[in-house]
Amino acid sequence: MIIVPGVASINLSKRLAQIINAKIANVEYKIFPDGESYVRIVDNIEDDVVIVNTTYPNQDKRIIELFLLIDNLKDLGAKKIKVVVPYIAYARQDRRFREGEAISINTILKLIEKIGADEFITVDIHKEYSLNTIKIKTRNLNAIEVIADYLKNINFNNPYVLAPDKGALERAKKLGEIMKCEYGYFEKYRDRISGAIKIEEVDIDFKNRDVIIVDDVISTGGTIAITAKIVKEKGARRVIATCTHALLVKDALEKIKSAGVDEIIATDTVENEFSKITVAPLIARELC
Amino acid sequence: MIIVPGVASINLSKRLAQIINAKIANVEYKIFPDGESYVRIVDNIEDDVVIVNTTYPNQDKRIIELFLLIDNLKDLGAKKIKVVVPYIAYARQDRRFREGEAISINTILKLIEKIGADEFITVDIHKEYSLNTIKIKTRNLNAIEVIADYLKNINFNNPYVLAPDKGALERAKKLGEIMKCEYGYFEKYRDRISGAIKIEEVDIDFKNRDVIIVDDVISTGGTIAITAKIVKEKGARRVIATCTHALLVKDALEKIKSAGVDEIIATDTVENEFSKITVAPLIARELC
Repeated sequence: MIIVPGVASINLSKRLAQIINAKIANVEYKIFPDGESYVRIVDNIEDDVVIVNTTYPNQDKRIIELFLLIDNLKDLGAKKIKVVVPYIAYARQDRRFREGEAISINTILKLIEKIGADEFITVDIHKEYSLNTIKIKTRNLNAIEVIADYLKNINFNNPYVLAPDKGALERAKKLGEIMKCEYGYFEKYRDRISGAIKIEEVDIDFKNRDVIIVDDVISTGGTIAITAKIVKEKGARRVIATCTHALLVKDALEKIKSAGVDEIIATDTVENEFSKITVAPLIARELC
Repeated sequence: MIIVPGVASINLSKRLAQIINAKIANVEYKIFPDGESYVRIVDNIEDDVVIVNTTYPNQDKRIIELFLLIDNLKDLGAKKIKVVVPYIAYARQDRRFREGEAISINTILKLIEKIGADEFITVDIHKEYSLNTIKIKTRNLNAIEVIADYLKNINFNNPYVLAPDKGALERAKKLGEIMKCEYGYFEKYRDRISGAIKIEEVDIDFKNRDVIIVDDVISTGGTIAITAKIVKEKGARRVIATCTHALLVKDALEKIKSAGVDEIIATDTVENEFSKITVAPLIARELC
């Protein structure tokens, strides 16, 4: 088995290779002056190949590179290609919310299958049912386990695990159970007149507590910011935002910090300064 | 027949619709804050659909949008989808120049076929043999005809049509024949020590003449600039650079202008201020 690292998953690939004791392929990446991606597999290829390539930042470029890798590896003689996309972009457009809309995630998954992937592994995809679009073996890994492993070793002051909305409650429950602390959620709704996101009045006592807000993805940071603000106003000592995928689009970081978030802890499905937790053990378990 | 315009081929789509008297579909394009593309077909779809979507600027985004359009249209009930990509990106990586390289254009074409295109039409693809990669009906249109039609109506002073290298000679010959003027080419080579592009000494008399440099694509402008400089030094009155696809990457325009090019004339396979010639009649002929 050889691991082919995508340009945005270099570190995760190394961690994974170390755990499963696999070789990492030497891949040359270039961007031509006109913006086109170039990929070259420098090493000889083995029969079993694992591509690890996340799709953020710059989702379109990463997706095109993924296609180039799969097709090229197939052409170079790989017999079985497992495709690991730790963060799969376009997953939020998972159905036709309005007539005539493209169901983008379905298209992307179909293309991955059609160009030659034999297996598809991802982490915390927006909706697991999207994977039913394709016929190859798929697997959605749940990162909350590695996040909990990391957080339970930190000394928190009377911690409270908070889901910023009901959709994240499952996640908060699991985290709370492993960390052996209280958990709950905010009731989020959209104001019918202004369109703004609002939070229902809550009567959780946050005074002097460390609050861990947990979500699957932090994108523009809007939800985290509004949640953190309320928690801080209600007297929380520290606010930690944790998630699987920290995209932190545009001014998200600034927005989150000025809302009172003291720390962001995320996994390496997206590699940046906040990806302190690795999902490599989860992927390794799946590959062995 | 209904035309579905890509976000980078709005004008060409309109010109084409006018010629063949077809309806243009109302398509909604959006970019989400995280950078993901969104497409929505607002109109009801007919059985026969023609997508017109070029792939520059921002080739990866345009290619992903193309995939979304094809898959979505198929899903919405289109029976036959003709895909017109006036400028197809990734075409210069058309073979394995070094071991292990991805043959990018083959991957892109395969994906277009696999996601559901029934026919593929392009203009002046870098190498026509790339089209053999796929099994659907393909067609490569030659824009030199519409370029010549445009140029022959301009009053030039003792014009000379110049290919900047031997690869463009066919093009220069055709243009010269239609414009009824002299044509020729420069012998371009790469200096083995410095790696720089050099031009063999030429003895064409350019004095006081209008020189039309013709190529298929102007990308970084390096070739055009070096060619124009020599021509101007040899006393040319005016230098016109003409091509099918004017990408004009980064500082290409500045480079070309400061080398002495007085005017750039290109087609609307890539839409910008220089796309003065439309390829719509060529495409129309192919569709009828």
